Amino acid sequence: MGSLEDHNPHHFNPLDLEEFRTQAYQTIDFIVNYYQNIETFPVLSQAQPGFLKSSFPNTPPNKPQPFETTLQDVQTKLMPGITHWLSPNFFAYFPSTISTAGFLGEMLCTAFNTVGFNWLASPASTELEILVMDWMAKMLRLPKTFMFCGSGGGVLHGTTSEAMLCTLVAARDRALAVDPNRDVNKLVVYGSDQTHSTYAKACKIAGIPPENIRTICTTLGSEFGLEPRLVFEAMEADVAGGLKPIYLCATVGTTSSTAVDPVDGLADVAKRFGVWFHVDAAYAGSACICPEFRGYLDGVELADSLSLSPHKWFLSCLDCCCLWVKEPGLVTASLSTDPEYLKNKQSESNSVVDFKDWQVGTGRRFRAIRLWMIFQMYGVANLQSHIRSDIHLAKGFEKMVKSDSRFEIVVPRRFALVCFRLNPPRPKSKPKVVELLNRKLLEWVNSTGRLYMTHSIVGGIYFLRFAVGATLTEDRHVAAAWEVISEGADQVLRDQS
Amino acid sequence: MGSLEDHNPHHFNPLDLEEFRTQAYQTIDFIVNYYQNIETFPVLSQAQPGFLKSSFPNTPPNKPQPFETTLQDVQTKLMPGITHWLSPNFFAYFPSTISTAGFLGEMLCTAFNTVGFNWLASPASTELEILVMDWMAKMLRLPKTFMFCGSGGGVLHGTTSEAMLCTLVAARDRALAVDPNRDVNKLVVYGSDQTHSTYAKACKIAGIPPENIRTICTTLGSEFGLEPRLVFEAMEADVAGGLKPIYLCATVGTTSSTAVDPVDGLADVAKRFGVWFHVDAAYAGSACICPEFRGYLDGVELADSLSLSPHKWFLSCLDCCCLWVKEPGLVTASLSTDPEYLKNKQSESNSVVDFKDWQVGTGRRFRAIRLWMIFQMYGVANLQSHIRSDIHLAKGFEKMVKSDSRFEIVVPRRFALVCFRLNPPRPKSKPKVVELLNRKLLEWVNSTGRLYMTHSIVGGIYFLRFAVGATLTEDRHVAAAWEVISEGADQVLRDQS
Repeated sequence: MGSLEDHNPHHFNPLDLEEFRTQAYQTIDFIVNYYQNIETFPVLSQAQPGFLKSSFPNTPPNKPQPFETTLQDVQTKLMPGITHWLSPNFFAYFPSTISTAGFLGEMLCTAFNTVGFNWLASPASTELEILVMDWMAKMLRLPKTFMFCGSGGGVLHGTTSEAMLCTLVAARDRALAVDPNRDVNKLVVYGSDQTHSTYAKACKIAGIPPENIRTICTTLGSEFGLEPRLVFEAMEADVAGGLKPIYLCATVGTTSSTAVDPVDGLADVAKRFGVWFHVDAAYAGSACICPEFRGYLDGVELADSLSLSPHKWFLSCLDCCCLWVKEPGLVTASLSTDPEYLKNKQSESNSVVDFKDWQVGTGRRFRAIRLWMIFQMYGVANLQSHIRSDIHLAKGFEKMVKSDSRFEIVVPRRFALVCFRLNPPRPKSKPKVVELLNRKLLEWVNSTGRLYMTHSIVGGIYFLRFAVGATLTEDRHVAAAWEVISEGADQVLRDQS
Repeated sequence: MGSLEDHNPHHFNPLDLEEFRTQAYQTIDFIVNYYQNIETFPVLSQAQPGFLKSSFPNTPPNKPQPFETTLQDVQTKLMPGITHWLSPNFFAYFPSTISTAGFLGEMLCTAFNTVGFNWLASPASTELEILVMDWMAKMLRLPKTFMFCGSGGGVLHGTTSEAMLCTLVAARDRALAVDPNRDVNKLVVYGSDQTHSTYAKACKIAGIPPENIRTICTTLGSEFGLEPRLVFEAMEADVAGGLKPIYLCATVGTTSSTAVDPVDGLADVAKRFGVWFHVDAAYAGSACICPEFRGYLDGVELADSLSLSPHKWFLSCLDCCCLWVKEPGLVTASLSTDPEYLKNKQSESNSVVDFKDWQVGTGRRFRAIRLWMIFQMYGVANLQSHIRSDIHLAKGFEKMVKSDSRFEIVVPRRFALVCFRLNPPRPKSKPKVVELLNRKLLEWVNSTGRLYMTHSIVGGIYFLRFAVGATLTEDRHVAAAWEVISEGADQVLRDQS
């Protein structure tokens, strides 16, 4: 073992620059061609489980195959299994936006391939992240307490889950530090029944007992926003029961229906009980760059942390989540490491930021360059226009729903998601029948491959989610989608009668 | 709020396809030009903290700037702050490899921008990941118990930290489930003083009390490998003390010196105490694709999980970590979520894999396509040749070190990392003086900008790490690096006398 013969092995060049250039050009052409024809594919892949198995040998190839064959395989073998998130007819989940600037930024990130765990490992990676996090904060009119140029700071994670986890761990450790028994079973965290599922997961990863994760019910009456009074009561009861509230998560733009929790009211409760207050604005935070939506963040100045995912609606491709914290020291107290092999003068002098201490892992990509490219190539005015344009399209769709008496809007539209269902006034059907009707409609619509929508349930009501925001979506796609939905309604109502 | 005027806002097209094509071509040219000239930049950025601050306004631009200006800014404003990880003269840390196939795969991943949290969200993303994880496993000759085609399976994470965290949480929850007090303070985890720093961090994130993280000392006698006997004794003592051992992490190729823990011996101890046994082969796992190195993984068939980071030495760019687990059900029991908005027939029928339940977050990129491209475009034979070629270069460097009596090899070279130091036999210096000499040498070498190396300390000995593996490195770079080091030695020895 290790006793390799001393010979110069066969030459293999995995980065021949002229080959790289040619094949990268070809790949760009492939991608442009894909986008040009994206509407010809079923939006939701119609593949069946296991479809890929027979396409490839079950052992890895020993010899290379030509690049052209590889691209051909992408086209013929993979494409049928791809759900086209970038299709202009993709209205499912939340959009996963892309842009020329985001794509080019990603290319540069990959090209430099810097591993910016600390400042020294690539100063530009860290300093550009500091710059764009402050730019984002300024664009969102966050207080200086969240900025590096103030007393806080921000960091780029991959997903909201990581942002929640890192702040939860900071809050947990702060509480345990003053508990002589270090009893995690006494710690309680709070969210609503609309908080993203990843929150409970992050809490469990951090070791919060599942029974200490309070899921407070919301109702149509509060438009599925979390009521501060109920949080107050829950915390009061827990304290009375000898438990210790440590963390409250509010959401601006929930996944099911883009409900908005009252940030300022919840901040008051959080302050009263001394808990860490996090605001998850993964989706709707991007809208808050427009003055007319900024009000949804009112009270964020009282929060301890805020997260927003530019890969959702800010034209950055996956994955990218901004996390701002008021007291970075609390996060780094939990997450910092100091191994010998990473020691350096700059880190020791405390004159620099080492982002490895703000995240789960050590290695990290140069994600900041993607956001920086978006700012440089588009500017804030265009970014605002992009948000408004999507909302304009969603309003158009909402109008069409409202104009058809067989349909109804389930919760008021706030951003670019329309929550609606088929519910013909005559003959009045039982709730279960209405639900079944909508399940059938959704299945019918998605099976056409002409668009892709998803569903959710709030307050016991099953509904369809029409989320506008895929980068290539235009008026005509929304109009065509409505026609398909309308046709589907004809179909399922006919089948029913 | 939300009462936007009903108007069609100014048209802004963030994905104009012809513009995309042109600018992507330009970016490719920029990257090729960068690689062509990469040797003209100082490898380690010589920038000072805060260097970027004055280059950009402190508020985000409101209007766009031309693409050419943006690229120019990358060249003039960012480049001085970039540490060139892809320089052929980069010998620091471990390499962060790239390749044409990896880069093109990344472009396709970004282009599709699928969010494959579950099978339905993009079947090809999940099924291709299943395919390549089994391919990787077969190439490494792992037992079928780690494969989907057997009884286990693998998943792509971003970093080793996440792989460790997810398996730690599974091990923790398994232990807590049978403890009526659910007392995390009784759980103990084990590693060596050479285990990567991220392990202790992952343990702390999972809520393991810091004082329950056992860091077992290694010595030069065992070439800094973790001795099973010492682990046995530590576990025995903990059990006697009323504690519960739950997790043992072995490393194949430690970060400081590529030490290898004896996997089979440790597996026996792990089995004896019923603890989860994880093997971290982030760096050296890639070498194990060559039969002559596979022996380092002997005993892995007895492990519960194994991780390997292809972004280190397998020509995949950042970020990419393979995790294989024998009982995926234990991981998903801790990490699965089932929110209404992601429910679908395929997931409910249990006929598919939903990778969101194997990781921290919900969203996830189509990373598998990168590894798949590497397999398709290179084949296993070339990948083995790539590993052997790097090791050949490292052996060449080792020879040069050995041929200069002023230097010594600190620990035996195993892979492509050479651990050495300046330690002239005459006059014999005190250990502290030798350390200072090497610190000065490292500083001198790195300040030339002609190469970049880092240091570490094992067994109290400060040494220099020369890690071969940057994709573009050739014989001549290693030879030139040795000349600089040799010149540096002249210099610091002259200064000393």
